[in-house]
Amino acid sequence: MNKKPLILVTNDDSIVAPGIRALIQVMKEIGEVVVVAPDSPQSAMGHAITINNTLHINKVHLDSDLENEFSCSGTPVDCVKMAVHEILKRKPDLCVSGINHGSNSSINVIYSGTMSAAVEAGIEGIPAIGFSLLDYSWDADFEPIKPFIKQIALSVLKNSLPEGVVLNVNFPKLSANELKGIKICRQAKAMWIEEFDKRKNPQGKEYYWLTGEFVNQDKGEDTDEWALQNGYVSVVPIQFDLTAHHAIGFLNQIL
Amino acid sequence: MNKKPLILVTNDDSIVAPGIRALIQVMKEIGEVVVVAPDSPQSAMGHAITINNTLHINKVHLDSDLENEFSCSGTPVDCVKMAVHEILKRKPDLCVSGINHGSNSSINVIYSGTMSAAVEAGIEGIPAIGFSLLDYSWDADFEPIKPFIKQIALSVLKNSLPEGVVLNVNFPKLSANELKGIKICRQAKAMWIEEFDKRKNPQGKEYYWLTGEFVNQDKGEDTDEWALQNGYVSVVPIQFDLTAHHAIGFLNQIL
Repeated sequence: MNKKPLILVTNDDSIVAPGIRALIQVMKEIGEVVVVAPDSPQSAMGHAITINNTLHINKVHLDSDLENEFSCSGTPVDCVKMAVHEILKRKPDLCVSGINHGSNSSINVIYSGTMSAAVEAGIEGIPAIGFSLLDYSWDADFEPIKPFIKQIALSVLKNSLPEGVVLNVNFPKLSANELKGIKICRQAKAMWIEEFDKRKNPQGKEYYWLTGEFVNQDKGEDTDEWALQNGYVSVVPIQFDLTAHHAIGFLNQIL
Repeated sequence: MNKKPLILVTNDDSIVAPGIRALIQVMKEIGEVVVVAPDSPQSAMGHAITINNTLHINKVHLDSDLENEFSCSGTPVDCVKMAVHEILKRKPDLCVSGINHGSNSSINVIYSGTMSAAVEAGIEGIPAIGFSLLDYSWDADFEPIKPFIKQIALSVLKNSLPEGVVLNVNFPKLSANELKGIKICRQAKAMWIEEFDKRKNPQGKEYYWLTGEFVNQDKGEDTDEWALQNGYVSVVPIQFDLTAHHAIGFLNQIL
């Protein structure tokens, strides 16, 4: 590559989250960075977009090295659309999303704003990667995972990704010498068993908080959950053609 | 089946939308119906869930025949979680979502609250179908498509669906005698080219509306877009294991 690659950085925990600041640090080492990220937390927003409300963008200066940082009032997917079609002068060479504070492995990929931003970039034809660390703390330590993030981003810049595929990268909460390396995995079959925490407001009216327990139903040793529990960085290739091709024959019989 | 099947009905256009009222009419002919649907429009909410705010449910009586209708303050996915884990006494035999006012074919499946509700039911192990009519009008005519909805729902109740698969059913806007029948399809490769409508507020500050043009890049005659343009009801089996298995070999080479 003759010139520096153009790298779009976004997330769902908001532009001030330590996870995105760490990701920006790594990306500055390998390319020209433009940040377009939500101005407020957007966790669990999935692939939501803003069609019934207005969108605002503001130029901000959180990193003294960076010329182009923008906060956006929308969802993570809105941020990517805004970046590609309104802010950036050319299509970026790479889009990275995260580093999410918390896991986006297995079924969490589907609820995740972080991963939906990466998927949206993939739909736009941009090589894209979502990064998540299994530590919900604001003070999470991102240092041990930075070398892996750099390695994966450089490899994707060099080799690109198959059409219609983006990467879901999750890191266990381990020190540098405990991390065993990268494993390419499939999404584990898992789900949340919801428990609604029912309360009463000061007027006596009932309301709920969504809570739940994560249940991994998958014993496979080729899954992201297995990798994370065994000290590996999990990389799952994710697609947005949702067609269940294996079910077409069955449906042709019953309909 | 000895007793009437229990059918959960939801949508994303809100509990008062004509589309869900039409779907309820059809489902009452084949089972015991419980409605849990958003109290306000939730289009394009994708798989968003409410984790940073409270949730409210209210028992409502919009249909004089129905004992169990609930409006919910959350997203379509919240409605399904609430229904399954808080409202219903047993797991429903079927979850139907819609009838959406507008298309959820091809890539729209990923932005759609209607389809995300069906997918959430699928994750919970419930046979699930999302229905959409290619007519955004509030006064859309749902009569021509009711026989197909009944046929598909009855077949799914009888034959179930493969594990991990839900159905995305889209209807062209045609009269009963113009509709040519059902085609089992794959998701067309298509995308939205965004155009942001940039305006100034009364204080002179810029803001944006998201608009865009839908572009079908797929010439295949086995796609949902082809079926709809040629007068067929399209049925696409959708999966929520997003793993791009075909990309695993490539990633093992480059990482």
